[in-house]
Amino acid sequence: MNQQSPIQNQNILAQNSLTQAALGTPERPFLMIPGPTPLPEAVRAVLGEPAIGHRSAEFKTVLARVFAGLQWAFQTQNPVLMYTASATGAMEGAFQNTLNPGDQIVVLCCGVFSARWADMGESLGLQVTRISVPAGEPNTVESLEAVLTADTARKIKAVVLTHSETSTGVLNPLEAMAKVVRAHGALCIVDAVTSLLATPFYTDTWDLDLVVSGSQKGFMIPPGLAFLSVGPRAWEAFERCTHPGYYFNFERNKKAQQDNNTAYTPATPQCLALDVALSLMQQEGLEAIWARHQKLQTQIRDGVEALGLSCLVPHTQYASTAVTAVYPPVGVSVSSIRTYIKQHYAMAIADGQKELKGKIFRIGHLGHISSTDAERVLGALEAFLKEDR
Amino acid sequence: MNQQSPIQNQNILAQNSLTQAALGTPERPFLMIPGPTPLPEAVRAVLGEPAIGHRSAEFKTVLARVFAGLQWAFQTQNPVLMYTASATGAMEGAFQNTLNPGDQIVVLCCGVFSARWADMGESLGLQVTRISVPAGEPNTVESLEAVLTADTARKIKAVVLTHSETSTGVLNPLEAMAKVVRAHGALCIVDAVTSLLATPFYTDTWDLDLVVSGSQKGFMIPPGLAFLSVGPRAWEAFERCTHPGYYFNFERNKKAQQDNNTAYTPATPQCLALDVALSLMQQEGLEAIWARHQKLQTQIRDGVEALGLSCLVPHTQYASTAVTAVYPPVGVSVSSIRTYIKQHYAMAIADGQKELKGKIFRIGHLGHISSTDAERVLGALEAFLKEDR
Repeated sequence: MNQQSPIQNQNILAQNSLTQAALGTPERPFLMIPGPTPLPEAVRAVLGEPAIGHRSAEFKTVLARVFAGLQWAFQTQNPVLMYTASATGAMEGAFQNTLNPGDQIVVLCCGVFSARWADMGESLGLQVTRISVPAGEPNTVESLEAVLTADTARKIKAVVLTHSETSTGVLNPLEAMAKVVRAHGALCIVDAVTSLLATPFYTDTWDLDLVVSGSQKGFMIPPGLAFLSVGPRAWEAFERCTHPGYYFNFERNKKAQQDNNTAYTPATPQCLALDVALSLMQQEGLEAIWARHQKLQTQIRDGVEALGLSCLVPHTQYASTAVTAVYPPVGVSVSSIRTYIKQHYAMAIADGQKELKGKIFRIGHLGHISSTDAERVLGALEAFLKEDR
Repeated sequence: MNQQSPIQNQNILAQNSLTQAALGTPERPFLMIPGPTPLPEAVRAVLGEPAIGHRSAEFKTVLARVFAGLQWAFQTQNPVLMYTASATGAMEGAFQNTLNPGDQIVVLCCGVFSARWADMGESLGLQVTRISVPAGEPNTVESLEAVLTADTARKIKAVVLTHSETSTGVLNPLEAMAKVVRAHGALCIVDAVTSLLATPFYTDTWDLDLVVSGSQKGFMIPPGLAFLSVGPRAWEAFERCTHPGYYFNFERNKKAQQDNNTAYTPATPQCLALDVALSLMQQEGLEAIWARHQKLQTQIRDGVEALGLSCLVPHTQYASTAVTAVYPPVGVSVSSIRTYIKQHYAMAIADGQKELKGKIFRIGHLGHISSTDAERVLGALEAFLKEDR
């Protein structure tokens, strides 16, 4: 079995990226979108293995490694619940299991995905206060502090912080914000969907109560699994929760995981893939992974600026290491750029979303991406610009 | 791309089963458990393909075929919602979106999985009446009719019927039961997890309001997707529902699917696999699939009885076509049988669950299983019995 034996080749990541980018086709382009992200060869191999019984002894040994690996990735001693769902499911689980209808929460909004938390909160009957900034801007510690300081009665039960906003490529100052939430006493809920494994992230050191991520991002495996780190204060909130739900229920899922099991049948191929991917990542090392993403961001940002283009996020210190949003040249449509790169270079880049659709394009540089891939997408962009003018 | 071109070989199913059963290993045995079920080669191939963007035009064409194929499998014109979740998630979605806390429901219980519905209903604040039978017995139309006839005030809002109870191998008389529910007026919620694609099933003809199934059963693909057919009365109930939730929300998911999209990032490998599996199944034909499962059930049942063993379900007309539960010979442990067959024949069969653990073993014959596989498991059992005595 592939996932049983540690992979020996230290350079497998760089080698695979070279191969994969070159192997894209216009029908199945190499993905430089902010997720799903490209799959290492070893991950693809294990996905296609024969079916495995999810209650077998073999699978339990896989789950044991996976649950330990998730704690490593989140840098936490907390249980990291693993759901078969997209990250949105884990987001709902975070609310359902720690808050009651009518509870007040604050959501820092800076794009589509942070706004989804606010939308979801209202759907679930929470009283939501949004702190919003224009697209491309980060949320500020000061605006959060102002709202929390005014809450002298401590009515605000939770604050949702989105670390990397995938729709704009903004990186929020999470550590500083979390301190402010901690001082207030509200639960600190963090969307780490595209920041985990792309930028320094310390669940325990930063004392984060609930942290959500998804499999198809930094984890280098397909969509299908969502992860939720649940800290001690979140467990206390769970005890006071009147309608914690069933499928995403904290207790049911934790109890099963303690026995290296899952409460309900999991997406087994993704679990096997995660085991392989965690092994690849542990060989590369967390700090090396973070450094690689930082380097990719600089490379992409410098590259597009050298081509005369501007990034949506003006300040480098607030730029996500997972995705870079770029304005097209005046008079050039985003779809023409995307189509050209797909047809001629077999690479996919993303459009903007909602109000930003057609106004920006987004280059994903998250997960199984090398500087060769970044070079390639910059080369494709350069070729388009030369052809177009 | 594999999933773009229809597979030509009409005999691929039988051929693959031959190969797969022979290719099992003690560490990754061929699965004759009631799910996950074995994967056809063409399904395995597509699972390991490079990552695909879930919002790409290519993926939309896959989803269009998948959504149409699901309606075919369920024999319905209703929207069949596709969730990235295990079937338990879709079960919760069925309750969340059609019932309100305090509502009365009736759950017909005949084993672990039907009982889960009752447990879940209570967790969600529903008032649950259980109609239970001993393990191995089917629920009866008469007992259901008695409860519903007594409900002259029409306080019962929904009845949950489990078609094939996976923990015991009982097949309930669904069509007759659904008629009784229809006459009363309650919503008819059906657990078709291990009956769909294994036994005749007609969502529209039988006028079923909500039907749940999962990907790792008759669909011949890995776990990760759950399906929920939602009929007109269920949509009306949705309109009256106060807390329909977010991730499993009917409206959000239906709206996305109408555009050949998904509300949230789906488990893309399973979607590609489902496209391939539906193509294989459509070549075989629904009636041929049902007939094959009926034949497998007869073969397994006759085979174990010829070996001097008894089945948990005494009456053939109530025997599931997906799984057969068998008593071990007196004095022989279930675990010794399972271990022998795994070690010497590289096949996995299942233990009993909860109170039935160690008391029965279960042979799954669902999905990508041929009569050669059934022969093989019977041969393994025979060899064990000869060796043991």
